[in-house]
Amino acid sequence: MMKIDFNSDLGESFGNYAVGLDAEILKQVTSANIACGFHAGDPLIMEKTVRLALAEKVAIGAHPGFPDLQGFGRRRLEMNLDDITAMVAYQVGALAAFTPKHKLHHVKAHGALYNMAANDSAIANAVVTGIKLVDPETIVYGLANSELITAAKSANMKFAQEVFADRNYQADGSLVPRTQPNAVITDAQEAAQRALDMVTNKAVVAITGETVSLSVDSICVHGDNQSAVALAKQIKQLLIDNQVDITSEITVRG
Amino acid sequence: MMKIDFNSDLGESFGNYAVGLDAEILKQVTSANIACGFHAGDPLIMEKTVRLALAEKVAIGAHPGFPDLQGFGRRRLEMNLDDITAMVAYQVGALAAFTPKHKLHHVKAHGALYNMAANDSAIANAVVTGIKLVDPETIVYGLANSELITAAKSANMKFAQEVFADRNYQADGSLVPRTQPNAVITDAQEAAQRALDMVTNKAVVAITGETVSLSVDSICVHGDNQSAVALAKQIKQLLIDNQVDITSEITVRG
Amino acid sequence: MMKIDFNSDLGESFGNYAVGLDAEILKQVTSANIACGFHAGDPLIMEKTVRLALAEKVAIGAHPGFPDLQGFGRRRLEMNLDDITAMVAYQVGALAAFTPKHKLHHVKAHGALYNMAANDSAIANAVVTGIKLVDPETIVYGLANSELITAAKSANMKFAQEVFADRNYQADGSLVPRTQPNAVITDAQEAAQRALDMVTNKAVVAITGETVSLSVDSICVHGDNQSAVALAKQIKQLLIDNQVDITSEITVRG
Amino acid sequence: MMKIDFNSDLGESFGNYAVGLDAEILKQVTSANIACGFHAGDPLIMEKTVRLALAEKVAIGAHPGFPDLQGFGRRRLEMNLDDITAMVAYQVGALAAFTPKHKLHHVKAHGALYNMAANDSAIANAVVTGIKLVDPETIVYGLANSELITAAKSANMKFAQEVFADRNYQADGSLVPRTQPNAVITDAQEAAQRALDMVTNKAVVAITGETVSLSVDSICVHGDNQSAVALAKQIKQLLIDNQVDITSEITVRG
Repeated sequence: MMKIDFNSDLGESFGNYAVGLDAEILKQVTSANIACGFHAGDPLIMEKTVRLALAEKVAIGAHPGFPDLQGFGRRRLEMNLDDITAMVAYQVGALAAFTPKHKLHHVKAHGALYNMAANDSAIANAVVTGIKLVDPETIVYGLANSELITAAKSANMKFAQEVFADRNYQADGSLVPRTQPNAVITDAQEAAQRALDMVTNKAVVAITGETVSLSVDSICVHGDNQSAVALAKQIKQLLIDNQVDITSEITVRG
Repeated sequence: MMKIDFNSDLGESFGNYAVGLDAEILKQVTSANIACGFHAGDPLIMEKTVRLALAEKVAIGAHPGFPDLQGFGRRRLEMNLDDITAMVAYQVGALAAFTPKHKLHHVKAHGALYNMAANDSAIANAVVTGIKLVDPETIVYGLANSELITAAKSANMKFAQEVFADRNYQADGSLVPRTQPNAVITDAQEAAQRALDMVTNKAVVAITGETVSLSVDSICVHGDNQSAVALAKQIKQLLIDNQVDITSEITVRG
Repeated sequence: MMKIDFNSDLGESFGNYAVGLDAEILKQVTSANIACGFHAGDPLIMEKTVRLALAEKVAIGAHPGFPDLQGFGRRRLEMNLDDITAMVAYQVGALAAFTPKHKLHHVKAHGALYNMAANDSAIANAVVTGIKLVDPETIVYGLANSELITAAKSANMKFAQEVFADRNYQADGSLVPRTQPNAVITDAQEAAQRALDMVTNKAVVAITGETVSLSVDSICVHGDNQSAVALAKQIKQLLIDNQVDITSEITVRG
Repeated sequence: MMKIDFNSDLGESFGNYAVGLDAEILKQVTSANIACGFHAGDPLIMEKTVRLALAEKVAIGAHPGFPDLQGFGRRRLEMNLDDITAMVAYQVGALAAFTPKHKLHHVKAHGALYNMAANDSAIANAVVTGIKLVDPETIVYGLANSELITAAKSANMKFAQEVFADRNYQADGSLVPRTQPNAVITDAQEAAQRALDMVTNKAVVAITGETVSLSVDSICVHGDNQSAVALAKQIKQLLIDNQVDITSEITVRG
């Protein structure tokens, strides 16, 4: 039986500001990427989100990002590699403080840090070094086929390759940037079918027609609003109907 | 043989801003309270300060403070108790990330948080709860005879009572506030003798003449400038000359 | 004909985080207190909120608060008086940058700063000094009968006394704290009638039965959600039905 | 008689953290670029630095930077153009609040923002738009021959072209990056002679031998430490000895 993990970004409120349907999307996913107070989240929100995830038996991971609350961690910041390593370790350690055994299932970088680590091997290595410093047993989540996966392999870390059901891909396996009109697949039926195809075929058809081979360990879904949660449900149901096991206990490589 | 720990606040630089003679004071002390990025410090400075402390075989502790870099954590902030607990756990976890086994020798609150926890039992309990959440085996450092020590006892945590060689005391065992003219003892010889007296007699003579009983587990010294380091050396030498063992391996209570 | 100003706090979103029905409440009020980037707001949100207010011909004021985004400026912070003065001047100047002639109609302190300035004359004077530094012609908004109004008078500044339609008052003219069960009047009809009574009688009946004399220049209403906007509409309609002129061109004292 | 302005970055301390010999360098320069609380500086430091500059009759300008205290504004941040415009206007308005007539002599962008605006016309226009929004009469300082100067011209703003005495130039008029070994001229005598040559010849010899034409309105000097101040004095004396008038009342173009 095929296995796939469902992950989502959570705990991205801050102080008085609330975003995300965390309680609802936690019922759909098997692993949670919890913001660590730099791009979003604050200590109390982290504590509460960990508790929510534990109650739903969802695997807990850290979601470290750039120190840029105003830009929600989505703006590229030119940071020294040793600063990136320390920043990642700091955030991973801070989140681990709220878990029962101070161990995390995984770490997934956020926003601009995720994108930069996908394309730049030096940044990817800096991120992986920061994760390994805290826990060499945790799983590195990264975009399938990206430099971050390569860096995790080089560091002998476990890793999980992530795909997006609602995004179009380019021939090199990267995502069509959001600045382009066809970046996002808006039809829920199409997105769900694409998820199933990726899991079944271990490949995706690029926007330019090429078939791109992909390892698929985890699908990223969103809890920003009701339609995002509905899409997650629809993808999940189609996979279950096709005998795919939705679980965080994936066979991790590395 | 009597034993006493010497502790100092370290890693209080931030980004481009450098303060403190960390390398020098680390040669005098037996335990380091390392800032955790809220009132001072940043992830890379934390990583470097931990490495320095390890090289000098100094015991490593976290020094959590209010999220107030501009006020250096010295301004009282009206924070909910559950926010205090989460904030302390966050900072303790973040610093632990940089230590080899992710275990800390101790935790000492900083500035306004330290002072508020010394006088207010609810805040003291909130701080201790945050520390215990991360590691029930770490030592809680607090002002001798303060509410923080009481809170540590109540939580069955280990604790160490701290004294200040260069500060005058009031009859209730609290420090003469810095707003008063005789708060600080400026004569180095007098401060050193006072340290020896406190360690030997387990008591201090208050500014109003009363003898106040004190447990003395650790002396706080400073590395802000050359004269602070010189004072630390002088206190240490007088204690050594009087057969006091300077060590972080104190017999902790609790 | 009696005249009254309606004011509301606006521009309290931050980066990716959106709060407040600014566009809707702007249609109800005659003056806007715009957050200045310390407790809420950011430069682009300030620019957009000023533009919205101009389009609705609503008078523009600054809404300076403590540098505490996590606490939304609602937590007391122990700040030196000269820091308060500089912080207020800074925020007032920053908001003025976005107005056509760099002049503001008024300044109203936010949250904990507002409450501290209402009760503490030294803080009230520090706030007024900061406002006057930037523009001695702008109007100081403050809680009716508070220390902030006294400070504005002493500084020969114009001022406007503010009341709350949906809050109960104590015998000394202060608001019943939100920590008490009867702090807020939840019945819209009752709140509207109370607003009319305060404007007509220049007095309010305290929770303990005493009649407290009040000058009433402005009523504070909220745009947090649909029911808050509905309450603002109801109060406004009752006042209009009773021949009260809703205008920011109040006869300011001082 | 030739005229030249001497400018320096000032007010770059923050809270408890002190940097820069502001009082000393203010005696050497004719215009001050004062940090505005984003990359450095805080409201009280801004107020004090303005007062110091007024006492020395030094022209006051704003020195806006990225919101990145940890990186001291030296790290590139991918910011939307409208965010840049608003951020610049905000900081310019905030500093103007502390000056007697709320008018600034000039605005000079800081660090990464300065460098990005020198090379990227869209960013240069965003910066100039922010300055013009607050005061269309203030002088835009920018690297000689850079996109920022072009943007100021296009906006019909006054501008001043800045040169660096202690930096080597490339054939296109840009500075040799600090990442290259020969970026900085360390010999004080050579730097002073280069300043005189640039002012006299309105040109500089690039590291590759070409003569690059330059307009020279202002020389940037530093007050970081005693040797920087000494260099500023030496450059100034050589210019005075050669009948160059050191003044902020330069004949601005535009």
